[in-house]
Amino acid sequence: MSVSLPDPEFLFDFGSPNAFLAHRAIPALAARLDVRFTYTPILLGGLFKATGNRSPAEAFAAVPAKLAYMGVETARFLARHQITDYRPNPHFPVNTLQLMRLAVAAREAGLFEAFVEAAFVHMWSAPKKMDDPDICRAALAESGLPVDRLWALSQSDPVKQALIANTEDAARRGAFGAPTFFLGEAMFFGKDQLRDLEDEIVRARG
Amino acid sequence: MSVSLPDPEFLFDFGSPNAFLAHRAIPALAARLDVRFTYTPILLGGLFKATGNRSPAEAFAAVPAKLAYMGVETARFLARHQITDYRPNPHFPVNTLQLMRLAVAAREAGLFEAFVEAAFVHMWSAPKKMDDPDICRAALAESGLPVDRLWALSQSDPVKQALIANTEDAARRGAFGAPTFFLGEAMFFGKDQLRDLEDEIVRARG
Repeated sequence: MSVSLPDPEFLFDFGSPNAFLAHRAIPALAARLDVRFTYTPILLGGLFKATGNRSPAEAFAAVPAKLAYMGVETARFLARHQITDYRPNPHFPVNTLQLMRLAVAAREAGLFEAFVEAAFVHMWSAPKKMDDPDICRAALAESGLPVDRLWALSQSDPVKQALIANTEDAARRGAFGAPTFFLGEAMFFGKDQLRDLEDEIVRARG
Repeated sequence: MSVSLPDPEFLFDFGSPNAFLAHRAIPALAARLDVRFTYTPILLGGLFKATGNRSPAEAFAAVPAKLAYMGVETARFLARHQITDYRPNPHFPVNTLQLMRLAVAAREAGLFEAFVEAAFVHMWSAPKKMDDPDICRAALAESGLPVDRLWALSQSDPVKQALIANTEDAARRGAFGAPTFFLGEAMFFGKDQLRDLEDEIVRARG
């Protein structure tokens, strides 16, 4: 990089299909820009509560034309990024408190990347009711993760507090939903604004 | 053009600041792609009623972080398209029924392009309370338009019916807000999706 730019940051919750789609689009973008994305787990339900926001599915439940169009935009995003493994989760919305705590625990355990990929897959590629503890444990074990160890760690106070802190910090920085990206203090909301993020990185490098 | 593509269509209401911003971005895009945009006046209030939708300002009134971010996206759009003449209208929301009828009348009178530019300027560049008939007439006269003639024509049944038909047709085709773009049956919503529209035109030409 010709100038010193902060790493772009990706705030995510496994409950958001658009966070999964961003997760799938990020590797090619990161390679193209020669950057590393920092992943920050947040609790989307907590961020909604803090900011007064709610999911598009809820906010536009009474606007069927808008919901239909959201499907069109999703299809375009899939095509543009050649994503072939997205499957809507029939159990949506899934409560992700435990999954997000597990993500924080996995980072402490040095298993963050493997956990994030596995959890996204079990939510949006081979979708399951991941807020059912038995289903969740079986799915993660199937992905080769040390479930008992992560589960125990996820119940520790530092892990619980870290997730709360990430979420409060997100709200303080202006976030209100997921996926959200930061480049320093500049915020970009939504999978489609990965393009604005890319433009900004290219521009900042002059 | 190497293949026969329909002209892109721009559905607009002067009451939408994002429609103004799209109107400012369109000339460079049209030149770059060597296409002509067809402008279709609709009544956004009628489209909202038909689809159950409402303006972002209203839908997100209780989500200040989202409203603040919308300002950030507007600033980015202005910078990207080098738009320097945008001024928020202090009288927002402005009832645009008469303005949109006048747009249909102006098309019949062969004055459509001049009228559209003038009405957008008086809404979002030198903003006025354009739902006040005296202010509206004075502003359009200042722009050199034959106000008495257009006003009389705007009250005719065919003009009123044409605006209703445009709006009903928009809802039938899946539109729920403004700005909306069509390329044939493919719909693109919002000023930022001019990028998707451009991608689609480039892709369709192979």
